[in-house]
Amino acid sequence: MEKMKIVATARQVPERVVTNDELTDLMDTSDEWIYPRTGIHNRHVVTDENTSDLATSVAEKLLAESGWSANDLDFIIVSTMSPDALSPHTAAIVQGNIEATNAFAFDVNAACSGFVYGLSVASAFLSSGRYQKGMFIGAEVLSKLVDWQDRTVSVLFGDGAGGVLLEKTEEQKGLLAEELQAYGDSGEAILTGRFANKNAFVGEISPLDPYFHQDGRGVYSFATREVPKVLNKALEKAGLTADDVDLYLAHQANHRIIESMAKNFGQPMEKFPTNMVEYGNTSAASTAILLDELQKTGKIKPGMTVAFVGFGGGLAIGAQIWQF
Amino acid sequence: MEKMKIVATARQVPERVVTNDELTDLMDTSDEWIYPRTGIHNRHVVTDENTSDLATSVAEKLLAESGWSANDLDFIIVSTMSPDALSPHTAAIVQGNIEATNAFAFDVNAACSGFVYGLSVASAFLSSGRYQKGMFIGAEVLSKLVDWQDRTVSVLFGDGAGGVLLEKTEEQKGLLAEELQAYGDSGEAILTGRFANKNAFVGEISPLDPYFHQDGRGVYSFATREVPKVLNKALEKAGLTADDVDLYLAHQANHRIIESMAKNFGQPMEKFPTNMVEYGNTSAASTAILLDELQKTGKIKPGMTVAFVGFGGGLAIGAQIWQF
Ligand SMILES: CC(C)(COP(=O)(O)OP(=O)(O)OC[C@H]1O[C@@H](n2cnc3c(N)ncnc32)[C@H](O)[C@@H]1OP(=O)(O)O)[C@@H](O)C(=O)NCCC(=O)NCCS
Ligand SMILES: CC(C)(COP(=O)(O)OP(=O)(O)OC[C@H]1O[C@@H](n2cnc3c(N)ncnc32)[C@H](O)[C@@H]1OP(=O)(O)O)[C@@H](O)C(=O)NCCC(=O)NCCS
Repeated sequence: MEKMKIVATARQVPERVVTNDELTDLMDTSDEWIYPRTGIHNRHVVTDENTSDLATSVAEKLLAESGWSANDLDFIIVSTMSPDALSPHTAAIVQGNIEATNAFAFDVNAACSGFVYGLSVASAFLSSGRYQKGMFIGAEVLSKLVDWQDRTVSVLFGDGAGGVLLEKTEEQKGLLAEELQAYGDSGEAILTGRFANKNAFVGEISPLDPYFHQDGRGVYSFATREVPKVLNKALEKAGLTADDVDLYLAHQANHRIIESMAKNFGQPMEKFPTNMVEYGNTSAASTAILLDELQKTGKIKPGMTVAFVGFGGGLAIGAQIWQF
Repeated sequence: MEKMKIVATARQVPERVVTNDELTDLMDTSDEWIYPRTGIHNRHVVTDENTSDLATSVAEKLLAESGWSANDLDFIIVSTMSPDALSPHTAAIVQGNIEATNAFAFDVNAACSGFVYGLSVASAFLSSGRYQKGMFIGAEVLSKLVDWQDRTVSVLFGDGAGGVLLEKTEEQKGLLAEELQAYGDSGEAILTGRFANKNAFVGEISPLDPYFHQDGRGVYSFATREVPKVLNKALEKAGLTADDVDLYLAHQANHRIIESMAKNFGQPMEKFPTNMVEYGNTSAASTAILLDELQKTGKIKPGMTVAFVGFGGGLAIGAQIWQF
């Protein structure tokens, strides 16, 4: 076990709620279509915030909750596939906003696996012996990367952010094992956020296309087929069986995918909490938001074994087993 | 020391060279203005490649040079501020292209400090004990993020990629120390790559702006003032003085900044090799390209102490001291 603990959790979602019914004004869709296929009723979208604003709110809450000062932080890592900009990176904006004068900061992009991958990086920094205290945030404003006329993607995504503070410890808590995997040969199944590739000498090589495009069926079958394999490998590395895990916190893409996972592992749905009904798919933020909800309602208890599971764009999958 | 070694290096730059003279057709500038202020004569720009193509060529060369099979890789990390797209992430495309079936993959964004930050992440994965063999690539197509009518930025940047293979070792080689720092309160000094933040419910919050904007003077004085402080802290952590370092491989933004660093540390320019004369500023790729040139020409020898220094967008700075 790599010994460390999650000292605090926090989340921030925009106030503005968009219901499935409200989407019917924009496109030919319905709550009757969306909800049974995805488990999503609502999503939250920004009104004047960008990704760094949501992430900064999370950072402030994390400091308030832990009693840490911003100066205590060795690093700030933000996982996002929807940064404010390519420069400055979102983590640096957060570092400036909270005046974390001793922290370095950078962004990680592993799309919807961003929570697990970012936590992997953050925990590796602690385990390397270089650093003691870190902040990790998953933050997304996916509403800006969605064509709100395209019913095949716009109904699925939402905005939000969540994060954790991590610290080295001598207690029997920490990362038991992880398994991360890429499937770049299937990368075309989820596309978003493409600036035009052009210059003054050859003209346009590829056009601007900010918006999500998705092979929904392909992603669905990929997730239900491959995620259990990766989770099984993580369990094996940890020397655990599926029954040993108290809670599975999976990326909140789709209720049916999570049901399929629970069934695959012979586990009751109570061990697979969900909240996409309220937030939709918030990519790198989804697991962090869920984690904070469970912490705040006392559902995560010291000593519990928790699995984090991410999957999505890349394509990529990741699973981590933590001792809380 | 965190024991590991750089097993191979490689680089890939596009064939098309754009000289300073050629830029005078596009805007009111001249070799006489550009060269003395920056040390840049040429830059290379893509004709039909994107960032992942340059990175894939580097990955293939790294495997060829090392004799490693793609299956040996535990991970692929790409540092970039100019990815093909926000999804799939560039590292996943590389993973798919080279069929590295056991590797996970993600992108890091720390702008022009991307080489040092990405190497920091890659080395932390090895030091954590989780992984043995990794690929790290810095890759940029900055020509797509440049307004080729804007002489204040377009003359500075170029396209390219470079990378390394890293492996755990029992030899006395590895990372001696690092110092990384963020300055998010000065983030506005280098801006690029902003998609419109807009949605169907509130309209446009902020507009699309793909292009670089830079406070050149501000960045210049930031770099000359702050980089030596960070490098000094890294040297202190390593228990070394400036004289103990055999080679300083600094981000190739500007020849004058590097001259100022060498002077500040009382070191001859021979210890601060440069190549911006040919490539311009290639952000996360610049140090990796330089490293490969020095390796291929036998200028880096086993046993040498090498400092990597990055600085730029974020703002951010990073310095690492390696025992080769
Ligand atoms: C997206 C998803 C819900 C679509 O469900 P599906 O049963 O696969 O639906 P299909 O894409 O095959 O489309 C079926 C029909 O519904 C239509 N449809 C698609 N979106 C619709 C919507 N929002 N409202 C109404 N109809 C819709 C399609 O146009 C199609 O119509 P057609 O048969 O007349 O052509 C499902 O594929 C899914 O959940 N995939 C996983 C996506 C995911 O989680 N991605 C993120 C991973 S991080
Ligand atoms: C960019 C840089 C070379 C500009 O040099 P400078 O001496 O600071 O020049 P200024 O920006 O003050 O501009 C001086 C004049 O030159 C002009 N100018 C700017 N770019 C020019 C160009 N390419 N050709 C000709 N004239 C140019 C300006 O418009 C200005 O004209 P004005 O006085 O009539 O308004 C310098 O500031 C620098 O190197 N900064 C660091 C940038 C960097 O490395 N960034 C990346 C970090 S990763």
